[in-house]
Amino acid sequence: MQKKVSIFRHEHFNAAHRLYNPAWSNEKNDAVFGKCNNPSFHGHNYELVVKITGVPDAETGYVMDMKELSELIQQEIHSRFDHKNLNLDTEEFKHLNPTAENIAIVIYELLRPHIPADKDMQVRLYETPRNFVEYPA
Amino acid sequence: MQKKVSIFRHEHFNAAHRLYNPAWSNEKNDAVFGKCNNPSFHGHNYELVVKITGVPDAETGYVMDMKELSELIQQEIHSRFDHKNLNLDTEEFKHLNPTAENIAIVIYELLRPHIPADKDMQVRLYETPRNFVEYPA
Amino acid sequence: MQKKVSIFRHEHFNAAHRLYNPAWSNEKNDAVFGKCNNPSFHGHNYELVVKITGVPDAETGYVMDMKELSELIQQEIHSRFDHKNLNLDTEEFKHLNPTAENIAIVIYELLRPHIPADKDMQVRLYETPRNFVEYPA
Amino acid sequence: MQKKVSIFRHEHFNAAHRLYNPAWSNEKNDAVFGKCNNPSFHGHNYELVVKITGVPDAETGYVMDMKELSELIQQEIHSRFDHKNLNLDTEEFKHLNPTAENIAIVIYELLRPHIPADKDMQVRLYETPRNFVEYPA
Amino acid sequence: MQKKVSIFRHEHFNAAHRLYNPAWSNEKNDAVFGKCNNPSFHGHNYELVVKITGVPDAETGYVMDMKELSELIQQEIHSRFDHKNLNLDTEEFKHLNPTAENIAIVIYELLRPHIPADKDMQVRLYETPRNFVEYPA
Amino acid sequence: MQKKVSIFRHEHFNAAHRLYNPAWSNEKNDAVFGKCNNPSFHGHNYELVVKITGVPDAETGYVMDMKELSELIQQEIHSRFDHKNLNLDTEEFKHLNPTAENIAIVIYELLRPHIPADKDMQVRLYETPRNFVEYPA
Repeated sequence: MQKKVSIFRHEHFNAAHRLYNPAWSNEKNDAVFGKCNNPSFHGHNYELVVKITGVPDAETGYVMDMKELSELIQQEIHSRFDHKNLNLDTEEFKHLNPTAENIAIVIYELLRPHIPADKDMQVRLYETPRNFVEYPA
Repeated sequence: MQKKVSIFRHEHFNAAHRLYNPAWSNEKNDAVFGKCNNPSFHGHNYELVVKITGVPDAETGYVMDMKELSELIQQEIHSRFDHKNLNLDTEEFKHLNPTAENIAIVIYELLRPHIPADKDMQVRLYETPRNFVEYPA
Repeated sequence: MQKKVSIFRHEHFNAAHRLYNPAWSNEKNDAVFGKCNNPSFHGHNYELVVKITGVPDAETGYVMDMKELSELIQQEIHSRFDHKNLNLDTEEFKHLNPTAENIAIVIYELLRPHIPADKDMQVRLYETPRNFVEYPA
Repeated sequence: MQKKVSIFRHEHFNAAHRLYNPAWSNEKNDAVFGKCNNPSFHGHNYELVVKITGVPDAETGYVMDMKELSELIQQEIHSRFDHKNLNLDTEEFKHLNPTAENIAIVIYELLRPHIPADKDMQVRLYETPRNFVEYPA
Repeated sequence: MQKKVSIFRHEHFNAAHRLYNPAWSNEKNDAVFGKCNNPSFHGHNYELVVKITGVPDAETGYVMDMKELSELIQQEIHSRFDHKNLNLDTEEFKHLNPTAENIAIVIYELLRPHIPADKDMQVRLYETPRNFVEYPA
Repeated sequence: MQKKVSIFRHEHFNAAHRLYNPAWSNEKNDAVFGKCNNPSFHGHNYELVVKITGVPDAETGYVMDMKELSELIQQEIHSRFDHKNLNLDTEEFKHLNPTAENIAIVIYELLRPHIPADKDMQVRLYETPRNFVEYPA
């Protein structure tokens, strides 16, 4: 019998960002994004939970080695975004508004090619303890 | 491509309640609800997480503005239930037992008409850090 | 050498209460206590942390057995206040306003006689995750 | 209308364990399981969340009485695994590697027969605050 | 008898910052502050706990009204620092390195004049869930 | 003016242990330590918070570099105790009962020589989220 289990690994990174749409006037950006549009940026402690779903390996009892998953997140996400300004210092958000929704999609797409194709993946990202997102829904 | 994301907003309110079924004897209420049937009431810090699922808007990168979601919860839920006695002070629980299950259903039904029809919604309600519910399942 | 260590035990109880001063008019109670003065009561999940300070016993390595401390809190505090209306159901708050400050003082005074005289004691009480108190300061 | 709600109950237990595959050499066990293969064992505070999904009872407003669910977990899981060495002291892990994945499957299978057949069940198990699993996925 | 109680109020704000000493070379700033010296800034969800110690008022049972304390923090701290770049947007950190230590001292000095002189005050500031400070020690 | 600030760094390690006094009979060990005396051991996720108090350096604004403090804890504590059996695998607890009280004292004494003499130090150790200790008191 194939018993599917999900495993979750919790990591974190700190970054600055600013929300705005360059196609809009300053007034419209202010009206829509409010103080999140501060041109000098603000920041967050992003808490990231990566979920991998699959059948545990018969010999190890692991869906995936949590240590390998942690190292993958370190290498693909932490080294790219930790202590960075998402708008200024990263390729990914030069032309993409760094909302929590978009950051979660980007993280998913950076990690997905490194996860075996027979496993499912989902990303949960906390922008604050009170605001968080999941992708895919 | 349509990429669906879920967003979550965490709010809270404090309330008193009592669990009992008016169609039953005191003895049966005591047997089923135990000390939750205390006729002078007891209370909780309810922690509420509202989840909205949809495709982020192309211009904002938002599934929904978290600030608007927070204000909606403030207006529809917090103003109705915070620092209230659910059994005595609210229309919703005058004839409905205020179990966590029923409170979650009521909160869902109060919020749902205010959420765009193309978005899904789910409510998670913590009665205590150790007891919580989700609706719809 | 006498090495003093503090030990902490975390417990919880749920209760209803109402803040008001019977010597005042309704208007003054409303002005001072706001919605905490709701005459039908509201409630909280109180989280309680009891701290005991002393020199660990040479034979056990314990300042005090955490299990005994837990049972003491169960017997003196939980059985008295859990699932109760503090104003209506308890002797302690019949004539004392059940603010977090006063509840902490009452809990301290109920537990203190059961703790050996050569040990210090302090109570931390969370009324909500955002509001808490300590006694003695 | 049939409104399905999920309820969740949070419990915990502490245990020692060691990860290894008896069919492998020491070298291979070390390569795969690293310090989790320490032959003198290490341990965790396991935090367990059990989710039950069903239609609330019309008379009680409960999917299931949380107190009964808590007592069931106490009787079937806590009494079996708390303050135990999973590899040495339990039948379940004598010949099964006690990874978080396998512990979650075992807990599910121990509890499932005690839950009514018209209800769904899922187990979430935290091995640490940073590593956790869910079964079924 | 004068029974002193401490009350604590938990608030939060999000901000960007950069650590560096303008009197030093870039090399020395990098050596000392590492990636915290990123010239495009990074950011945090700052969690702030303000502690006030005094004798509860005989008529209210309050050391201080938590609601007033919350509003004071909103007005003096949140409105000044939330969604701001501490280095660029604030007077306080134009010439002061915004380490957690210095931010806590600044917050203390902004709030202290608004707290009655017969009460003590202490600030706890979480820069991340893993790094925090208290002032005065 | 000398403004003293405390900084706190949160780390963690997982270990197995058993509580018993070799000078006592099995019966007495069982009576005193209960299931904590399981001869096959049990275990915990220990959460460790180290507090350092001193005057922030005028040039850096740091009491101590959190990264250095984190590395010191890694090197002196984590490498010694993580994924270990405290009774069997460590020098420190071969002849000392590994109660939370004694572990906190040992951690303090291992770290203290590495902290400058003009700074104070305190250790908080969580054995579980519900049981924790501080040394010195």
